[in-house]
Amino acid sequence: MTVSREVELSGHIIDSGMMQACFGAIMDLGGSFEVDEFRIGRSEVEESYARLTVFADTEAELRSIVHELHQNGANPSHPVDASLEPAPDDQVVPPDFYSTTNHPTEVRYEGEWLPVDRIEMDCAVVVEEGAGSEGGADDDDADDSDGGPRAYTKVLNSIEEGDLVVTGETGIRVRPPERPRDREGAFGFMQGGVSSERPSESTIGQVAEAIAETKREGGSILAVCGPALVHSGAREDLARLVREGYVDMLSAGNGFAVHDLERDLYGTSLGMDTETLDHPRKGHKHHIYTISEIIRAGGIREAVDAGLVESGVMYECVENDRPYVLAGSIRDDGPLPDTITDAVEAQNAIREQAHEADLVLMLSTLLHSVAVGNCLSSTTRVICVDINPATVTQLLDRGSAQAVGMVTDIGTFVPILAEQLLDE
Amino acid sequence: MTVSREVELSGHIIDSGMMQACFGAIMDLGGSFEVDEFRIGRSEVEESYARLTVFADTEAELRSIVHELHQNGANPSHPVDASLEPAPDDQVVPPDFYSTTNHPTEVRYEGEWLPVDRIEMDCAVVVEEGAGSEGGADDDDADDSDGGPRAYTKVLNSIEEGDLVVTGETGIRVRPPERPRDREGAFGFMQGGVSSERPSESTIGQVAEAIAETKREGGSILAVCGPALVHSGAREDLARLVREGYVDMLSAGNGFAVHDLERDLYGTSLGMDTETLDHPRKGHKHHIYTISEIIRAGGIREAVDAGLVESGVMYECVENDRPYVLAGSIRDDGPLPDTITDAVEAQNAIREQAHEADLVLMLSTLLHSVAVGNCLSSTTRVICVDINPATVTQLLDRGSAQAVGMVTDIGTFVPILAEQLLDE
Amino acid sequence: MTVSREVELSGHIIDSGMMQACFGAIMDLGGSFEVDEFRIGRSEVEESYARLTVFADTEAELRSIVHELHQNGANPSHPVDASLEPAPDDQVVPPDFYSTTNHPTEVRYEGEWLPVDRIEMDCAVVVEEGAGSEGGADDDDADDSDGGPRAYTKVLNSIEEGDLVVTGETGIRVRPPERPRDREGAFGFMQGGVSSERPSESTIGQVAEAIAETKREGGSILAVCGPALVHSGAREDLARLVREGYVDMLSAGNGFAVHDLERDLYGTSLGMDTETLDHPRKGHKHHIYTISEIIRAGGIREAVDAGLVESGVMYECVENDRPYVLAGSIRDDGPLPDTITDAVEAQNAIREQAHEADLVLMLSTLLHSVAVGNCLSSTTRVICVDINPATVTQLLDRGSAQAVGMVTDIGTFVPILAEQLLDE
Amino acid sequence: MTVSREVELSGHIIDSGMMQACFGAIMDLGGSFEVDEFRIGRSEVEESYARLTVFADTEAELRSIVHELHQNGANPSHPVDASLEPAPDDQVVPPDFYSTTNHPTEVRYEGEWLPVDRIEMDCAVVVEEGAGSEGGADDDDADDSDGGPRAYTKVLNSIEEGDLVVTGETGIRVRPPERPRDREGAFGFMQGGVSSERPSESTIGQVAEAIAETKREGGSILAVCGPALVHSGAREDLARLVREGYVDMLSAGNGFAVHDLERDLYGTSLGMDTETLDHPRKGHKHHIYTISEIIRAGGIREAVDAGLVESGVMYECVENDRPYVLAGSIRDDGPLPDTITDAVEAQNAIREQAHEADLVLMLSTLLHSVAVGNCLSSTTRVICVDINPATVTQLLDRGSAQAVGMVTDIGTFVPILAEQLLDE
Repeated sequence: MTVSREVELSGHIIDSGMMQACFGAIMDLGGSFEVDEFRIGRSEVEESYARLTVFADTEAELRSIVHELHQNGANPSHPVDASLEPAPDDQVVPPDFYSTTNHPTEVRYEGEWLPVDRIEMDCAVVVEEGAGSEGGADDDDADDSDGGPRAYTKVLNSIEEGDLVVTGETGIRVRPPERPRDREGAFGFMQGGVSSERPSESTIGQVAEAIAETKREGGSILAVCGPALVHSGAREDLARLVREGYVDMLSAGNGFAVHDLERDLYGTSLGMDTETLDHPRKGHKHHIYTISEIIRAGGIREAVDAGLVESGVMYECVENDRPYVLAGSIRDDGPLPDTITDAVEAQNAIREQAHEADLVLMLSTLLHSVAVGNCLSSTTRVICVDINPATVTQLLDRGSAQAVGMVTDIGTFVPILAEQLLDE
Repeated sequence: MTVSREVELSGHIIDSGMMQACFGAIMDLGGSFEVDEFRIGRSEVEESYARLTVFADTEAELRSIVHELHQNGANPSHPVDASLEPAPDDQVVPPDFYSTTNHPTEVRYEGEWLPVDRIEMDCAVVVEEGAGSEGGADDDDADDSDGGPRAYTKVLNSIEEGDLVVTGETGIRVRPPERPRDREGAFGFMQGGVSSERPSESTIGQVAEAIAETKREGGSILAVCGPALVHSGAREDLARLVREGYVDMLSAGNGFAVHDLERDLYGTSLGMDTETLDHPRKGHKHHIYTISEIIRAGGIREAVDAGLVESGVMYECVENDRPYVLAGSIRDDGPLPDTITDAVEAQNAIREQAHEADLVLMLSTLLHSVAVGNCLSSTTRVICVDINPATVTQLLDRGSAQAVGMVTDIGTFVPILAEQLLDE
Repeated sequence: MTVSREVELSGHIIDSGMMQACFGAIMDLGGSFEVDEFRIGRSEVEESYARLTVFADTEAELRSIVHELHQNGANPSHPVDASLEPAPDDQVVPPDFYSTTNHPTEVRYEGEWLPVDRIEMDCAVVVEEGAGSEGGADDDDADDSDGGPRAYTKVLNSIEEGDLVVTGETGIRVRPPERPRDREGAFGFMQGGVSSERPSESTIGQVAEAIAETKREGGSILAVCGPALVHSGAREDLARLVREGYVDMLSAGNGFAVHDLERDLYGTSLGMDTETLDHPRKGHKHHIYTISEIIRAGGIREAVDAGLVESGVMYECVENDRPYVLAGSIRDDGPLPDTITDAVEAQNAIREQAHEADLVLMLSTLLHSVAVGNCLSSTTRVICVDINPATVTQLLDRGSAQAVGMVTDIGTFVPILAEQLLDE
Repeated sequence: MTVSREVELSGHIIDSGMMQACFGAIMDLGGSFEVDEFRIGRSEVEESYARLTVFADTEAELRSIVHELHQNGANPSHPVDASLEPAPDDQVVPPDFYSTTNHPTEVRYEGEWLPVDRIEMDCAVVVEEGAGSEGGADDDDADDSDGGPRAYTKVLNSIEEGDLVVTGETGIRVRPPERPRDREGAFGFMQGGVSSERPSESTIGQVAEAIAETKREGGSILAVCGPALVHSGAREDLARLVREGYVDMLSAGNGFAVHDLERDLYGTSLGMDTETLDHPRKGHKHHIYTISEIIRAGGIREAVDAGLVESGVMYECVENDRPYVLAGSIRDDGPLPDTITDAVEAQNAIREQAHEADLVLMLSTLLHSVAVGNCLSSTTRVICVDINPATVTQLLDRGSAQAVGMVTDIGTFVPILAEQLLDE
């Protein structure tokens, strides 16, 4: 027995790789296809269109193929509405719920395609039938609502009993981002993947231009920072970037904040004086003393207000009202009172930042970068910097359309970046 | 002006490196010394003894030197009692509190040296004046108490108002572990540091022997596991080791458990069939479906009891009553109901495991290994396995006396280890 | 002014990515295109065909685009003969000579398309006008010659005065390898790129099957080996594979041979006993003594014949007539008399092996693997194993169509491979 | 039966670690000892002295222990002359020849201790009986000779029939370098091992100071350079350092020179414009065209003289008479006419540079750095910079007393270094 289904693709389906991916998926999964219609864009600005019939031996195989095609942007020719089912309990999704990609997605509801708000990977899609939007989403998005139905993502642990959750795969349209049409402009370089053998200073110049361009467009920049940034001596220059408005939000861990504050209180990082490179007395205990001082003060803001802390990244965040999220981890000392120790609560705080960001700088932290990356749409710009090529590769490997990685020393990267943005 | 202090060292102070470290510290910090007395052990079984007068230009410099000597096992010749001060508030230590190393430590209280229980790095030392030991420590340790005074560590966030906390550095004795006297026996190889160019199979044979020896001695083995263990196909062999009693406790993250359970429920790990290497339909969604199924069941134990989960590492832990700690992190999907999402609570659970373990196997996870390592005394045996040499180096770099690292593929390491322990 | 050129593509131009690459190249280089004709293969077995007109602002830009299209398999619609020019001197090519890719290539000569023999990257193409083929190529290829004209590659340092060298880019056709049509069969897995998170034992099983299949087809296997193979204890199992005929040729450096022979003469590798892990007396001098013993004997074969060497990889090569190339390097001790110290001479020897191989195993050596890889056609099967993911990535990044990498420990890989090939 | 031997140690035997190493060696190898005499330096400027009797069960074991002690600086109490034996043939050493460490060494000849010239690892020691020094050593060293007997190293392949070669281990004294007495001065930081988490800019400042200090002292600086230096955009700044006299000699491979020259001829490196980051037409062929142009010109100097090459590192070397060695390798394209393709000849050229250097900068090349490092005495200063921590670790792991490593991006390191040396 052979079963078949008709699917279509449209857009820049050749140079985006969409068509190649679909042909590959069919063959890998043991199916076959016939091209029923194919209209190629006659030039680089015209879109193309393809309609295929996909064949497989069994309905199960066919569904497997159609699922893969769907992930790659091919959709059934004759769409029907998405299936909706109420969540049976808090945190419990209906069986066969649809789990999202990080690409822009629409669901079909009463014959209309609704864009899915707050798209990110591995979520459920909840449809609200309209009018009020209380409960489901944050206020910002609610403002956009005109009272009609809307769709948005929810992570599993936010599902509430009765939420109408999309199930199955019908009535869902995914649009993997297309390859930008040219390499011009500040973001042209952001298609280059990982660059370990590219000219370092020139590449930092392009990062600077991308940041400047984002600010000129009124965009918001989120810096995700690891403690190596402080150890490697880049703290003062990052603090300048915060002060001068090139960092709008900060996402980090307890350790980053501790070492930044240690530098202010004791002049050291990991016990080493970052200027003289001396190891003063008890240097290796400074981080634990720092924690104890900040606990005594009641928190970072309190320590700044009390004049205890007078410089650094956290200081500039407090003084210039740049919101920060310090997410806890099981390797933390302390932690500081500002650190959100519950992982789910911390993820929610990170999620808000991620959704607001137009450009994300991932600076020498795998854990926090993955956490932020998990919450990003594939259309958000990402610049990832680490001295470990495996970290950069892993972070870029998440299907972002405008992501670029640079393998370099964060301790020289940030100073050169700051010089290019601030001193020229 | 010159100030001076007299300190002494005793034990195998030459071949442990203690004497070299002390001489180096004095010179690095700008001091000088005179050797007042030196008795060398005349053979390899006799201990040596040295008494020095240390000189410095200022009292501050001298204290800095004496602090370093103290960390390296040199102690003042004429000990006095440790200073104690009550904690002014919950989670707030007195200024100048003593922050621990991970080496065996004693504090002097009313003229007696009390061993510090539950020694680990970066803690405060609390002294209880005797009789009752309620509140301060866990029951196990309390059983050892004879009603006299006792000393034990507390992490900062466990400090309670009124706890008597050791401050300053007088009356404290640290004993860095000495180099074992020979390389014979199952643990002889555990002095070799990182081995990336050592014969792999022979080294695994030594790890197997160290595990077997620990079990013969009635010791307890803690396995700290990362998800790569499942992806690389080592899950079934680790499950066998749990079942056969070579793993007594498990420490892992949400991701490890999810991928282990995914393999049971869907036959895949990260969506790949670990035997045929096929990628079945929707494979990349299996992990999120797995989470949703376990949430629906109410937890891992419930899923095992209901017959939903029938194999794997978590299954064997449940069936054989091996306690496990799943610590949450901000990159988790889900998480599973069993995952402890609060970092402080998770650390406390990890701490209990770490203190109970006689041998710790760190298998392909940096985050969880660091968290466990933070809670270990320098005398606990540690075997660390990872394919990334930087991970192994970082984990071994924590002053453990009996720690060994192996740079290898966890996907071949565990099967060969299981074969050597179970099939020979 | 706008200039234009017509090019065509044919074959499986969509799922091979050829079409996507061409569209991308045109846009990246600032050109535009119109699709004049497009016939899509109606199913996965039919080929497709596209004819485009490419536009650019200047002739220079247009040539730049056409060059890139050419590299990706698009060719001018109306081919003319390739231009030929005599080399002005030994080792000196004519200006604007054509430098090869590693893909199958044809040059047009007197209206006929000649396949280019011995294709490899960065060479010149020399055309011989027929009849005799003396001088130009090795005997093997000469046997295939029917006396007509032939084309073959020459590296720059082999060019002789008067050689007819192809210049420019007309009359040259490059065929990048197409994606295999399915993932079945022993080589199906060889499209997976680098696998660091794949099940190790199952993946080794597939490597074993690919090797067995190559031998069943009468193919020739070249093993490229680094010294880590000996240090990690895999020597005995590799020796078995040589003896049993699973390795037909060996390519290595002086160091590999020295450590293999040291193991035979002294029972150590880098001074360590690879079974007991002991370090016997003067172990770190064994490699230099080994070199001196083999020099004294006159060479490896002489040492085997004299009964001095009685086991190991080099021993089995000698005893079983597996040809080996030991290429010298500036970090060598000695070297052994067998080592080819001149880099050009060594490259020529490696080149002969590379051209003869049907499957190349690259085992824990970057330098020698790059040297061999430089001489391979993109159609040769390559399996690359290293514990360093950067090495594997770099080696696979060379446009081979059937190449697979595995990040694992060579010290466990070879024993498991040998077990699967020999003991089952 | 027990056998014994008396050995002595003197110098700063405790803080250099010498005594610890000797005690450890005895115990590891199953021996025992008695300390017959021990005089400790009473302060940090006084030397210490120890005399031990070492015991073992067999003469073989005892010799094994004494060998290890010898390597660590312990010498027999009652020295006799070294044994000398003539080499039986060219390149053939006498059996049981003494193979050198890289530490300063003396051999006892006719009751006198002769320093061994040109010390480096894994060589034979040849003694010339005086007066003439024809044949044995290079002219420079010969000038120092006063006609008396002298000792110097020879690599195996330079041994000539009849050379008087030291055998056994008697009459040889090795002095492992002692730990410098303080951390002050430009070279104080050169004891820190690998720094991956140290402040980058401050550390580069210390490297600059060490270079400046070496020049002020009239020392000679050897730069060992890999091609990544060019790709990463550091070429212009290195060229400035050559021009301004901060690099006296250059050691590199064919690839480094090719990419440096490509940048001059085509404005690209690996086909990429290192300033605009564009990929011009045929960029990936530029390196092979560069080689062909330089071959056509007859070599690098000829190309500079002809005005073909007008900038870059090689240009500055030619123009400013900085001698360079380009060593060939099996992965080279071309090679250039200047490249020494024979590994033994190249090693000899490298050896001359290494022996002349007072400070060696190893910049982003493992192969060439190992080759240079093999020829260095343990007293030569080495600064090693690479983005891969494993490379830095491997290079530092060779027993140099004044070696420091920095894990950073060469593309930012060299510009910041040049700025600190030249612009301040």
